[in-house]
Amino acid sequence: MELTFRLATKEDIPDIVSMLADDALGADRENPDNALSDKYQKAFERIAADSNLELTVVEMNGESVATFQLSFIQYLVNEGGLRAQVEAVRTHSKYRGQGIGKRVFEYIVNRAKEKGAYMVQLTSDKKRVDAIRFYESVGFKATHEGMKMRLG
Amino acid sequence: MELTFRLATKEDIPDIVSMLADDALGADRENPDNALSDKYQKAFERIAADSNLELTVVEMNGESVATFQLSFIQYLVNEGGLRAQVEAVRTHSKYRGQGIGKRVFEYIVNRAKEKGAYMVQLTSDKKRVDAIRFYESVGFKATHEGMKMRLG
Repeated sequence: MELTFRLATKEDIPDIVSMLADDALGADRENPDNALSDKYQKAFERIAADSNLELTVVEMNGESVATFQLSFIQYLVNEGGLRAQVEAVRTHSKYRGQGIGKRVFEYIVNRAKEKGAYMVQLTSDKKRVDAIRFYESVGFKATHEGMKMRLG
Repeated sequence: MELTFRLATKEDIPDIVSMLADDALGADRENPDNALSDKYQKAFERIAADSNLELTVVEMNGESVATFQLSFIQYLVNEGGLRAQVEAVRTHSKYRGQGIGKRVFEYIVNRAKEKGAYMVQLTSDKKRVDAIRFYESVGFKATHEGMKMRLG
């Protein structure tokens, strides 16, 4: 299985948004019909302009099969450590169960080390039982509560 | 109680590091004797240079009584939403139990709204039972697992 990892371009937005939406929890959060809307376009431009944010597309035989965002955050904590945060990880529904997720996390760990991060972190909705089991299988520990507050 | 919120300067590093270290879980992660070391100084410079990172000091009568880092992260998720992430929150041990934490989170919510974020998020070690109860009291919900992987 040959996978290519590359930064997303503007042309990838529709594919990425449709992967984000193709998910039990993502469906009511995203609007794939509006992938070309200003909201997504402007968000993409801000991401692309920030070298700490790596919105990534995974390709196999020229098709987008997975996506994730890797954000590198600098803290004073831990003697000035850099952390890599993973969010919005999705494998295209057609390509699930083929070990792509495992390869994605091998890439993420290598990329985080290359950037000098001492930790990779993510949060996963407690309802995503299978995802949590998968993250544990690739080396994550659920040591923390992931707490969210939506603003009105 | 009059609190002032301002971005940290280089001169605040020793105060901040000593607040980070003055904590059951932080003690073995930080090295306050080395607050002037290159590691902390370089991390501070990278934080100060990034307008998405707000390392903040809270003052009362000219003394540093609390600190936190607010990181604004742009995603494509949620129709291109911006999130505010809180980390490294500490109130100086001399000033705990006076309601400073509550005021800090009022500030954080207002600041996040001002920047256009739709969500504030944080992770808290499951061992910090009191902290988690406090975060719930100010409006957070522990809907997610906070998963970490330390890199070797």
